[in-house]
Amino acid sequence: MPEALVVSFSNIMDSNSYRAEGSADPLIVSRERVLGPAYRLFYDQPVHLVRGQGCHLFDVDGVQYLDAYNNVASVGHCHPQVVEAVSRQMATLNTHTRYLHRDIVEYSERLLGSMPDAVDQVMYACTGSEANDLALRVAEMRTAATGVVITRDAYHGNTASTTAISPSLGGATSVGPNVRVVDPPDTYRLNADEVAARFTADVSRAADELIAAGYGMSSLIVDTIFSSDGIYADTTVLGRAVDEVHARGGVFIADEVQPGFARTGASMWGFDRHGLVPDIVTTGKPMGNGIPIAAMAARADVLEPFARAVPYFNTFGGNPVSIAAASAVLDVIEREHLMANAATVGDALRAKLAGVDDHRLGDVRGAGLYIGVEVVTDPESRGPDRAEARRLVNALRERRVLISVCGHDGNVLKIRPPLVFSLADVDWFYSAFTDALGV
Amino acid sequence: MPEALVVSFSNIMDSNSYRAEGSADPLIVSRERVLGPAYRLFYDQPVHLVRGQGCHLFDVDGVQYLDAYNNVASVGHCHPQVVEAVSRQMATLNTHTRYLHRDIVEYSERLLGSMPDAVDQVMYACTGSEANDLALRVAEMRTAATGVVITRDAYHGNTASTTAISPSLGGATSVGPNVRVVDPPDTYRLNADEVAARFTADVSRAADELIAAGYGMSSLIVDTIFSSDGIYADTTVLGRAVDEVHARGGVFIADEVQPGFARTGASMWGFDRHGLVPDIVTTGKPMGNGIPIAAMAARADVLEPFARAVPYFNTFGGNPVSIAAASAVLDVIEREHLMANAATVGDALRAKLAGVDDHRLGDVRGAGLYIGVEVVTDPESRGPDRAEARRLVNALRERRVLISVCGHDGNVLKIRPPLVFSLADVDWFYSAFTDALGV
Repeated sequence: MPEALVVSFSNIMDSNSYRAEGSADPLIVSRERVLGPAYRLFYDQPVHLVRGQGCHLFDVDGVQYLDAYNNVASVGHCHPQVVEAVSRQMATLNTHTRYLHRDIVEYSERLLGSMPDAVDQVMYACTGSEANDLALRVAEMRTAATGVVITRDAYHGNTASTTAISPSLGGATSVGPNVRVVDPPDTYRLNADEVAARFTADVSRAADELIAAGYGMSSLIVDTIFSSDGIYADTTVLGRAVDEVHARGGVFIADEVQPGFARTGASMWGFDRHGLVPDIVTTGKPMGNGIPIAAMAARADVLEPFARAVPYFNTFGGNPVSIAAASAVLDVIEREHLMANAATVGDALRAKLAGVDDHRLGDVRGAGLYIGVEVVTDPESRGPDRAEARRLVNALRERRVLISVCGHDGNVLKIRPPLVFSLADVDWFYSAFTDALGV
Repeated sequence: MPEALVVSFSNIMDSNSYRAEGSADPLIVSRERVLGPAYRLFYDQPVHLVRGQGCHLFDVDGVQYLDAYNNVASVGHCHPQVVEAVSRQMATLNTHTRYLHRDIVEYSERLLGSMPDAVDQVMYACTGSEANDLALRVAEMRTAATGVVITRDAYHGNTASTTAISPSLGGATSVGPNVRVVDPPDTYRLNADEVAARFTADVSRAADELIAAGYGMSSLIVDTIFSSDGIYADTTVLGRAVDEVHARGGVFIADEVQPGFARTGASMWGFDRHGLVPDIVTTGKPMGNGIPIAAMAARADVLEPFARAVPYFNTFGGNPVSIAAASAVLDVIEREHLMANAATVGDALRAKLAGVDDHRLGDVRGAGLYIGVEVVTDPESRGPDRAEARRLVNALRERRVLISVCGHDGNVLKIRPPLVFSLADVDWFYSAFTDALGV
């Protein structure tokens, strides 16, 4: 693995997550003993949460936190409509897809109805990892090729096959031999012409390399807001890169686990911002507001070779309870106008952050309620300042505001609250943020 | 792939599950359109379920079915204690393992307390597939080897890496080049001496082959009641095979997704019946009674190389809601004495089935409430009768009793009801069964 990838070890873990070895807290000691060394905790002072509501979390001492981080509880922590839908379905029936059930069909029609007409079939899994694992296999069967192009600090999952396309995991993880890595569209350090020229050229070159190496070009898989790469809202380059992938016989997988379900404020799906029709779409995290459900939608002709040949079955995937959760999430997104809220409140938050006059804040970017703030040593060199980003994350935590970091150098503040974030929450956030900065 | 594996195409799908193409039922037509050709339905006449309670399911017309198949709703469909625990936790908090939460620690202590002392750490995922995918990686890191030994009709999951150790999926699926296959202990067609000699010798030979081929011996992974192989309750051979694996530097992974959580009546875990202490244990299906949760427990020294090097994180894995479900399941198993019930009722059901004087029933076997009935052309040749097994499954469905089939030839009736199956349910089952047989 290139050394640069090792440096990014802590991206997906986030620079502010650690093993808690040596702690004196009895709960942390017990946790370490039974869960082992793979488990990490956020923050220098871990948070012990016991209750959540909307955008707010409460710790064991009753202290209230502003949640500006969690995208799973996308329609708000413990949303009563989701709780009620799940509780009711749990008390009624929870089986699997080998029996007929009306709700999975109705939900599927609704979900596919939110996507381009060409994306017309959907299969269910429990996690984004499973959905991406499945997508890779579908792409392989369709293209009779195994080569995959990803971005430099991509994260697509924790299974063996998705770990191999997740260099942001770093550490002992290694990208597979059939994987080629391209730089994300770094709109902060490159000008618009450079961004446009590079990304498409890089993808083309990577695809050609895979073909020359005998893997063939199977898929380009991209998180359409480049979350783990550092949150890039650019929409100018992906379309042309996908054209190059198609020209080489590959398919485009839009990983919507993070940008999907109205997060970007502009649309239900991140790929819409790019004016794209994907061949395969994967979803996960916010889909059931915390009840594990994920999906892989695809063009029927792309899905066909896999679906005809492989008897895929996912025991919990698309079961009536997870479908009830997912249906309630769509209801709430619509009823509470959360896409519009993500746009309005996200714009307001970005505007306030952009207005902070501080040389450490090099760039404020994003879309809707997915916001990245680049913390740099100075605005001329634009050098990443990982230490200061980490300090800010912990300083915000001390001020009862929860965020984290992302990006190759762990220096991009990741601000990604539940979609019910309000303008009052923006004020709270801004106040704590400027206080943490000391400005 | 050997041709024999292709023959078993329908094992995991079960011989009685089909694509529903050409149906006139509008719901089936819609389902086929949106879910695509990978989805299958049970029975010649699919069942459209709307409600469940205990061991009973109800279809859209109010018709009541006896569920003698579903092991996910292990403590009974819609058990009120599980519903209440999940509903309460959903209304309180549902986050992830980067924050401290007491329940995951307490549940882990309880879960590990039910296992041998040496198995002392546990990590969480959402599905048995994810748990097995993780277990393979843990074993690889521990052994610095990739060779895996499995049984001939094993099923261990639906991810890319677990599909490669799941020949029962058949079809376009192929076991990996690093995988060797051994016959299960067929106690029906071999005598006790043959069973004992063959299995250990086969595992040893497979391990030696993997070492000679340069893969090295990483793991033997076995469902400890050999579910998809045809349900073999033998406990005489696995211990010695594991000794051979250990002697070659490999580890033993007990796949407890099916036999675990008191299913066999003899113990919480299938490996206990074999007098074994596994290096790694995986669990899934019944763990949360339908809420997706799975786990991989391991000896700390086996887990260590992976857990130190790989920042594994599973977004939904071990979240407070899934832990609440899993805790409630343990409560119900204990409070309702479901292990003892599985033993008592399972014994009663096997005794009644063994008493049926019919030349088509070659063998009745199993442990607790995991029962296999071998349907054969005649008891002398012991030739598998897949067609008659399928006919019986559908005839039982017409008599409102739900079971399925398993085994290499799809001729073993798979009887695997929720653990709350009662002696009255046994009578119902027996009555429908003898009627379906026409005896």
